[in-house]
Amino acid sequence: MPPPIEDEWPAVCLVRPQMGENIGAVARVMLNFGLTSLRLVAPRDRWPNPKAEVVAVGADHVLKQAKVEWKLEDALADATLVLAATARPRGMEKPVWGPREAAEKIRSAINAGERPVVMFGPEAHGMESDEIAKADAILTLPVNPGFASLNLANAVAVFAYANAEARDGPAAPAWFRDTVNPPATQAELEAMFTHLEEELERGRFFHPLDKAPLMKRNLRALFLRARLTDQETRTMRGIIKALTIGRGGRKIDDV
Amino acid sequence: MPPPIEDEWPAVCLVRPQMGENIGAVARVMLNFGLTSLRLVAPRDRWPNPKAEVVAVGADHVLKQAKVEWKLEDALADATLVLAATARPRGMEKPVWGPREAAEKIRSAINAGERPVVMFGPEAHGMESDEIAKADAILTLPVNPGFASLNLANAVAVFAYANAEARDGPAAPAWFRDTVNPPATQAELEAMFTHLEEELERGRFFHPLDKAPLMKRNLRALFLRARLTDQETRTMRGIIKALTIGRGGRKIDDV
Repeated sequence: MPPPIEDEWPAVCLVRPQMGENIGAVARVMLNFGLTSLRLVAPRDRWPNPKAEVVAVGADHVLKQAKVEWKLEDALADATLVLAATARPRGMEKPVWGPREAAEKIRSAINAGERPVVMFGPEAHGMESDEIAKADAILTLPVNPGFASLNLANAVAVFAYANAEARDGPAAPAWFRDTVNPPATQAELEAMFTHLEEELERGRFFHPLDKAPLMKRNLRALFLRARLTDQETRTMRGIIKALTIGRGGRKIDDV
Repeated sequence: MPPPIEDEWPAVCLVRPQMGENIGAVARVMLNFGLTSLRLVAPRDRWPNPKAEVVAVGADHVLKQAKVEWKLEDALADATLVLAATARPRGMEKPVWGPREAAEKIRSAINAGERPVVMFGPEAHGMESDEIAKADAILTLPVNPGFASLNLANAVAVFAYANAEARDGPAAPAWFRDTVNPPATQAELEAMFTHLEEELERGRFFHPLDKAPLMKRNLRALFLRARLTDQETRTMRGIIKALTIGRGGRKIDDV
């Protein structure tokens, strides 16, 4: 298993967050996707907040390292690229990016040594216009226009996922592949097909005989489509043996 | 604003969910991304569950329409494509898809008239191997190997987002664009540049004179890069007027 991912950038900035539980849930999902820099601007309740700690589960260090500021300007002081996550159009002329596009811009910025920060507004009302005005671009999620209000941690989850995908590539994580068996080689498959076809011939499976080549091709297609592993070819050969053991020279029509 | 999105497929199937709050949070984020078909297999607590209703906020109808079954087989009976969301490798030889790839496969299946269902396991332990075995493919999220355990609703959020993006395309939602002003036309931009350049010439901005064409090109590039709207070109012209009003025939070197 590869080492844990703990990226400093992008930072996530919660603007006037209300419920401690939501702050904890944000910390947890940030770390789920390898993000660790949390900034809080004027949290409603006292900080540190025990309710946040309960929900953060194993992401306590994200909470402990969180920078708390009373002014948004201070929380953004070192940022070179600021995104505001908001579903609501405000008539501001800024670039509007979906999660994937935002994640790609953020990747490029980080690669160029920049320090991107993504702002998320408070639970009930979202950010104020003057807060959004500080952003270089809007991050908007493709939500249902009939039911657009996202839970705070769910919104951060979608962004953090998109960021992880832009960072690591869209494929399934490599550590998953390491645990599955390697695919079968052509030689292993060929040996399995030969074994199977021989036993099927002994059982007069292929009739009429002039259809045998076609039947064999279809049979091969079926197993090739399944993309067997080496282990599975061995399993298949065990199955063929188990099915034919003791059959001796009997043909199907002897039964 | 376009009509609400309420898609029947894919269905989301929660296998042995524990906390009512999590079921409600799943219903909410499903509807946030336009999904409405929820299936529950052997929920731990009684159903209907008031705690789920509190958290679902405006997604009550997703909860009310939820199908509750005691056996997973019954919940999957009508499905033609089953995905199991799990981060844990189990040595099973199934296709492993990330959210984006899973969403694309699901789109293709729906377009072909299929009925895809995505299973998510219980909060504490995930699904059992015999439950995962019913799936055609594994949905795996690109999580931090050092902190992989996702909150249930956050996992559904990431999938539902990927599904929405595959459905609607990766662009920012169209209803966002409708509310911003249209981009400026070439004629509007040209009139603005002419106005600006005339006033700058009056102020002897362009010197030495042989550099004027280059300076004008650079100035245009700056404003073109900002991709002004029609309203902004009017604003700019107002700014030019405001800055030059009363200046009369004075030149910079008259000051």
